[in-house]
Amino acid sequence: MSTVLGLDPGTATTGYGLVQARGSQLHCIAYGTLNTPAKTPMPERLAMLFAELKTLITQYQPESAAVEQLFFYRNVTTAISVAQARGVVLLALQQAGLSIGEYTPLQVKQGVVGYGGADKKQVQQMVKVLLGLNEIPKPDDAADALAVAICHSHSRESYGGLV
Amino acid sequence: MSTVLGLDPGTATTGYGLVQARGSQLHCIAYGTLNTPAKTPMPERLAMLFAELKTLITQYQPESAAVEQLFFYRNVTTAISVAQARGVVLLALQQAGLSIGEYTPLQVKQGVVGYGGADKKQVQQMVKVLLGLNEIPKPDDAADALAVAICHSHSRESYGGLV
Repeated sequence: MSTVLGLDPGTATTGYGLVQARGSQLHCIAYGTLNTPAKTPMPERLAMLFAELKTLITQYQPESAAVEQLFFYRNVTTAISVAQARGVVLLALQQAGLSIGEYTPLQVKQGVVGYGGADKKQVQQMVKVLLGLNEIPKPDDAADALAVAICHSHSRESYGGLV
Repeated sequence: MSTVLGLDPGTATTGYGLVQARGSQLHCIAYGTLNTPAKTPMPERLAMLFAELKTLITQYQPESAAVEQLFFYRNVTTAISVAQARGVVLLALQQAGLSIGEYTPLQVKQGVVGYGGADKKQVQQMVKVLLGLNEIPKPDDAADALAVAICHSHSRESYGGLV
């Protein structure tokens, strides 16, 4: 029973989702967000995010982690802020000794819906169905984190190993 | 005698420079680069950078640190890579309890040359003069790191406190 920690990094809100594969069935262990207060200096916010993520890893002991790759952003300031958080997230995962998979948005859509042209709503709907949840996980950051965790679980199944 | 650690973050190369103010005179304590190998997975590179920076802080015990702010980049992929390294750098500085100053490129030029329109060569020349060095520090990343450290030293002098 291998647990995958999916993450959707951000400075204000980092979504997380823990997915466990039992045979061919995926189970949702937990999901939610790690938050840092606005108007707090950026270095402090990054240190908070780092500490919260370490606590999460200690609590759930996942074997591997999955993070979406960053591509272009319309807003470069947002891209920089997300990338700073992403750097801290990757550091925490590496220090915890997790194997780390990185996936493009296209790969996540293909891995979850089976179709790279799927929209956000379709991805969220499939997250709900695949994990046997009663409703779509909220907020979006948590649903996105579960999606990348599912993508990682599926690709390990297909290829018989870690990516 | 307060030591300022200036940093110019990057995934492949992070420039650093340590500057100490003794009265009105600035002294260069050390400068150089922290490097991570290409073709190594990004999480490992970020962990190496984090560990190297912690070692540097332990060795020189600076009281404060200064980092240039990221603005636009022509290349978003480069911006993302630099920002991920910057996140890890800010985390290390915060964990070490250093006070951290962030400066725009304009502020660095004004702080070092006294003129926001100065070009790279003029900044490097002033770094050499202000620190009483025999030549312009190499590589550029180290010179840039010394420049932001000088900017921080000057602004603390002017305002009588940490920014």
